[in-house]
Amino acid sequence: MKEIIIATKNPGKAREFKRIFNEEDFTLKTLLDLPAFPEIRETGQTFEENATIKAHAVMERFNLPTIADDSGLQIDALYGRPGVYSARYAGDHNDAANNAKVLSELGGVPREKRTARFVSTLVFANPKNDHDLVVEGDVKGLIGLFPAGDDGFGYDPLFYLPELDKTMAQLTIDEKNKISHRGNAIRKLETQWEDWINW
Amino acid sequence: MKEIIIATKNPGKAREFKRIFNEEDFTLKTLLDLPAFPEIRETGQTFEENATIKAHAVMERFNLPTIADDSGLQIDALYGRPGVYSARYAGDHNDAANNAKVLSELGGVPREKRTARFVSTLVFANPKNDHDLVVEGDVKGLIGLFPAGDDGFGYDPLFYLPELDKTMAQLTIDEKNKISHRGNAIRKLETQWEDWINW
Repeated sequence: MKEIIIATKNPGKAREFKRIFNEEDFTLKTLLDLPAFPEIRETGQTFEENATIKAHAVMERFNLPTIADDSGLQIDALYGRPGVYSARYAGDHNDAANNAKVLSELGGVPREKRTARFVSTLVFANPKNDHDLVVEGDVKGLIGLFPAGDDGFGYDPLFYLPELDKTMAQLTIDEKNKISHRGNAIRKLETQWEDWINW
Repeated sequence: MKEIIIATKNPGKAREFKRIFNEEDFTLKTLLDLPAFPEIRETGQTFEENATIKAHAVMERFNLPTIADDSGLQIDALYGRPGVYSARYAGDHNDAANNAKVLSELGGVPREKRTARFVSTLVFANPKNDHDLVVEGDVKGLIGLFPAGDDGFGYDPLFYLPELDKTMAQLTIDEKNKISHRGNAIRKLETQWEDWINW
């Protein structure tokens, strides 16, 4: 059976991938299913750089086709921050602390200036391909005045979607995947990867 | 003595770096000075991706601060090609074949539409730094109707600089470094790296 690795230990990301990415004729594994892989230092300055670092490190180790995601929140009033620092803005992978820091920094900023964008860059690297496949997906919204909703992860409780009148954390996983940055990126990847890959 | 690696086996690039980058209190090494390092597969879709792949692969191997350059020629009439494929557009690192292919593709394109840009992206990765340093330099010019000049390397004989009325290959190395994409990128790096690096 053919195998593709999703280079993540984040159960939330793993779940979104497995839900969208059509497992036909291959098995999808994440770093949670594989022998312990050391922490990858995400020292990139952009989502693309970080996704490249992760995809190549994991591909080299297991010699299998590997997809890595790097993603984050860009808030206009904060000049694009937290950006690549999204997961460790206040504390390392501490969603509550990160959300609180963003809210505090946005203090008196009024609704119309709380525009933001979630971005996901995917890099698909394969030992038998000459070129990586790179796609980006995004979704636009507003940063709410307080967190709302229990689903999702990361900044989902702060990310308000005006058309739906809900935050990303108030959506079911399927509703979220339909409109999310990562959902959009994964769907772009799905239209391209089969023509690209050399098994 | 502190050491910094330039992740290149290209003698032309190595020479440009050593000429510009001020070697004070540290030694600059290239892959030509180090134990054999296997060919790095540059499978990125962008200069940044490729420079990241190279910098991280070499940094992991030698555990030393490492600068990688990825660079190329973007020709407007060719929709940005040869781009990341610059070094292997016709034949792998065959400058003459690559130049010939570009000239042939630009066949009847008139002078004013032969605009082009050389781009160099540098990624500086360091085991003791949390973030890479990334800079980009460029230089604009026109693609000539035939190659001219014996200096430089790559597409330099085709890259005409209207202000100087010379191609990049008709400049001395110091003249080239003063205006080139890589020279501009290295100078940007020089203003930033000492404040950034953790030795």
